[in-house]
Amino acid sequence: MIGIADIEAAAARLHGVVVRTPLLQNAELDRVTGGTVLVKPECFQQIGSFKIRGAYNLLSQLTPEQAAKGVVAWSSGNHAQGVALAGKLLGIHAAIVMPEDAPAAKLESTKRLGGEIITYDRYNEDREAIARRVAAEREAEIVPSYEDERIIAGQGTAGLEIAQQAAELGLGIDKLLVCCGGGGLTAGCAIAIHAFYPDAEVYTVEPEDFDDTARSLAGGERVANSPDARSICDALLTDMPGQLTYDVMREHINAGLTVSEADVREAMRFAFRNLKIVVEPGGAVGLAALLAGKVDTAGKTTAIIFSGGNVDAGLFASIQTERA
Amino acid sequence: MIGIADIEAAAARLHGVVVRTPLLQNAELDRVTGGTVLVKPECFQQIGSFKIRGAYNLLSQLTPEQAAKGVVAWSSGNHAQGVALAGKLLGIHAAIVMPEDAPAAKLESTKRLGGEIITYDRYNEDREAIARRVAAEREAEIVPSYEDERIIAGQGTAGLEIAQQAAELGLGIDKLLVCCGGGGLTAGCAIAIHAFYPDAEVYTVEPEDFDDTARSLAGGERVANSPDARSICDALLTDMPGQLTYDVMREHINAGLTVSEADVREAMRFAFRNLKIVVEPGGAVGLAALLAGKVDTAGKTTAIIFSGGNVDAGLFASIQTERA
Repeated sequence: MIGIADIEAAAARLHGVVVRTPLLQNAELDRVTGGTVLVKPECFQQIGSFKIRGAYNLLSQLTPEQAAKGVVAWSSGNHAQGVALAGKLLGIHAAIVMPEDAPAAKLESTKRLGGEIITYDRYNEDREAIARRVAAEREAEIVPSYEDERIIAGQGTAGLEIAQQAAELGLGIDKLLVCCGGGGLTAGCAIAIHAFYPDAEVYTVEPEDFDDTARSLAGGERVANSPDARSICDALLTDMPGQLTYDVMREHINAGLTVSEADVREAMRFAFRNLKIVVEPGGAVGLAALLAGKVDTAGKTTAIIFSGGNVDAGLFASIQTERA
Repeated sequence: MIGIADIEAAAARLHGVVVRTPLLQNAELDRVTGGTVLVKPECFQQIGSFKIRGAYNLLSQLTPEQAAKGVVAWSSGNHAQGVALAGKLLGIHAAIVMPEDAPAAKLESTKRLGGEIITYDRYNEDREAIARRVAAEREAEIVPSYEDERIIAGQGTAGLEIAQQAAELGLGIDKLLVCCGGGGLTAGCAIAIHAFYPDAEVYTVEPEDFDDTARSLAGGERVANSPDARSICDALLTDMPGQLTYDVMREHINAGLTVSEADVREAMRFAFRNLKIVVEPGGAVGLAALLAGKVDTAGKTTAIIFSGGNVDAGLFASIQTERA
């Protein structure tokens, strides 16, 4: 089972390679929540999301033989960029299976990082099957987006930094809200935070039609989302939690929270207006949960993660200018 | 003459009151400039700009008698919010003369901070005369937006932090580019940076039709802008440098740079796409100068300041979605 030592080892591998994003406070956010809120803007990573952490942690542990044959991943966008950048930094060829309707910014950025892109139809094709076929042909390593201990440990370094940076500010962590797709970031950060603050409450946050984690945790077994579900949170469109991530989350998560599409859009406006940060829909669900009052923050220190900021300008502009 | 001791004293007054904004690096920005760029995002201050630094430094030094009579300031927006917030924090009534066409975000925010707003017509009325009349009636202190040693020292704390934070990163400062309106931020930061790096090159950056500082420095005497000049950089629409700020700048500034409106818009898009930061037009001129190649950054460590992020959503959206 993955533990804090794995996350500390990942942090040592990532040192000087990924950005140690700051931990920010904002008076208006504290005012509306009645507490102290700490924001970890992972959108400030080179690729605009936390995904470089897990990808680099995995790729940097491949043997020379594995590295020579390259890697294959599938991703709606942010993991694609993480794997592409890790491959570029380590000199490892990276092929990524991406939905043809992924945000243009994510497709372009993956290409610019030297990733080989293989597109598929999100609603009619099986990306995993495509990736496994390519990997088999090339004898390449698969880089899962969450279902791997090296990925979970890498993503957990964000949580380790939150614990360290909060301590530098003279603060503890009472609550942590994590944007949840497959659960890699959640699992890693929950382990990291509980190593320092065993009593901290940790919550997942999902779009209300992609609440597989919330329902899985509440019901005691992994369940999937409806195949008809849609959300603007393109980074969180995962079908169900992984087995590894679910096992960690069952131990560490207090409850799964959900937010509406309107909550997410309002959170993106709040971030623009008050924090001056560009956060993508999937990265804004933690803030959305706070602003919608989904958790009691009064008098508490609550950390949230802006998991990414890769949003197309057109969508961002329309959200900022619509009537709330 | 103001010196580093004044800035260090200001930093002690501001400690725990204003945000110690981070100093950020971005791989794409380093790539396009061929050097190391350090970004100081003062847009992350509570009021969305650096102006709280000078305002708080001044207001916190008023006598109880002065404080009881309140203060008066004039401002296109950011200084207004700085004075309003400093007044609120210190329990001092703050009246602000603001142009009626100031960005709605800045007017609303000043009101929300408890500032008393007195509007005027930017192109036909003399804001300074209005402010002086109100101040005389109330025996209130005027809080200038740049022409005061306490203001300059306060703004200089941003430069002091840049020097300290660069050292924490193991870096020195070769060049500093500062957004320049009246010169308060420039003068303070230039003094601070030169106290640690006497050989650092310091440049002002202005919109090309508001290049009063560039022309004043080049010609050896203070000159004004055309009254017909217009720019989207609402934070930088100052008529000419102050006498105090000019005297400091003459000693410390290598040259005055200018950027076009198109340069500014492109910089705001770069900040959205790559940095995930919301920067207002006047706050983006330093980045604009870098991206437009106005200064040689190859192999150098260059610091820029995002002086503010208070931009209306409609303008921001139109800039992000226009064809470059």
